[in-house]
Amino acid sequence: MPKTAGIILVGNEILSGKIADANAAYLCRELRVLGVDVRRIAVIPDEIELIAGEVAAFSRDHDVVFTSGGVGPTHDDVTIEGVARAMGVKLVRHPLLVSILERHFRDRLTDSHLKMAEMPDGADLVGGETVRFPTILMRNVYILPGVPEIFRQKFEAIRERFRDEPIHLSNVFVAIGEGVLADYLNGLLVDFPKLLLGSYPELSNPEYKVKVTLESRDRGYLEGALAEFLRRLPAGALVSVT
Amino acid sequence: MPKTAGIILVGNEILSGKIADANAAYLCRELRVLGVDVRRIAVIPDEIELIAGEVAAFSRDHDVVFTSGGVGPTHDDVTIEGVARAMGVKLVRHPLLVSILERHFRDRLTDSHLKMAEMPDGADLVGGETVRFPTILMRNVYILPGVPEIFRQKFEAIRERFRDEPIHLSNVFVAIGEGVLADYLNGLLVDFPKLLLGSYPELSNPEYKVKVTLESRDRGYLEGALAEFLRRLPAGALVSVT
Repeated sequence: MPKTAGIILVGNEILSGKIADANAAYLCRELRVLGVDVRRIAVIPDEIELIAGEVAAFSRDHDVVFTSGGVGPTHDDVTIEGVARAMGVKLVRHPLLVSILERHFRDRLTDSHLKMAEMPDGADLVGGETVRFPTILMRNVYILPGVPEIFRQKFEAIRERFRDEPIHLSNVFVAIGEGVLADYLNGLLVDFPKLLLGSYPELSNPEYKVKVTLESRDRGYLEGALAEFLRRLPAGALVSVT
Repeated sequence: MPKTAGIILVGNEILSGKIADANAAYLCRELRVLGVDVRRIAVIPDEIELIAGEVAAFSRDHDVVFTSGGVGPTHDDVTIEGVARAMGVKLVRHPLLVSILERHFRDRLTDSHLKMAEMPDGADLVGGETVRFPTILMRNVYILPGVPEIFRQKFEAIRERFRDEPIHLSNVFVAIGEGVLADYLNGLLVDFPKLLLGSYPELSNPEYKVKVTLESRDRGYLEGALAEFLRRLPAGALVSVT
């Protein structure tokens, strides 16, 4: 079975409109390339109980879960405590994380910094070969930071863990509207019920009216569906295929 | 009590990394300006059962809910059916929506288009004074389209419904890191426990290290907290206040 993933963004700053998400958008693109099916994203406030509830549900419903944000040294950084509560374990301080913090901050190290050496009891540290600070993995939950540059560095260090069968994609751009197109899409799904078929109207593009996406993990199935779709389209409807 | 809101994005195209969300980011900014507290965002696939479950939970937990996406004429447009199932009602065709579609599509009108005249039984149509196609409101759930231009036009037509007491904001930019700052933030929260206090490190900005956000619906409370925070900061730590 191909892998499923869920993404939890812990971020008052997103909910209050101060910043736009960059991490979920990045992770959805990367995971798709790897062949992982992202099934759900949640954006929730920096509140321990909400985080615990969401992490418990996501961990149960998906093969892998990623959290973003809430891992620094300040009062609003409560993600790791939320994950611990989701799993019913306590927080422990990890000697390796302490030593990394000591090396980095030297005589500027504070008690607040040492909060970043805490992890849920039973968690593993992964990806530390290539980045300064390893990623905490609690069961199937990878805890990543909110700062986009570091989020990406840390994901890059663990990305090969998630590689699965690729999902093949063809885009068909058509000059007919969705109202007419709908019958062709429904007809195609009758013959190719396992096809992942998307239909995205583009109002302001003079070149085409709708982008149709055809996807499958089975390249032959996709090619068969694509050929049949193109064969059935009315004359003049096709703009391009990519 | 100030209003709370939840946002549900129905969109395989977001989960599969084909497009980045624009609608939730826009809506979070707009609702914050209006004084509405967005508590949760979910991004879920175009699947009726998932939509129904999420809409039922969001409708129960928030004063108002917005959905984005899945309202066109094709096979993957199942949001309205999902909302109906969430509320335990059937779909009905509304004569006003039929007449709008007839006027717009004239002799090009198809049965697929007429799917867009369906709404959950008991829903209202709102905002139709200023946009071509009114917004379906089912109980506290506003059903909006995924195409960003139309999403914005339709929200603009109903935005004054959501105006509440404003949330006042001050930004304080500091030249000290979060490890040192944490104690000052914790101290401030002891004296101003109702302050909404955020701390956002900026790694690549040479001007400051952390942006601190102070927020309250009570302007006097915010001003008192801001003055006290500035008074306590160590010498040289303050970069600017906005």
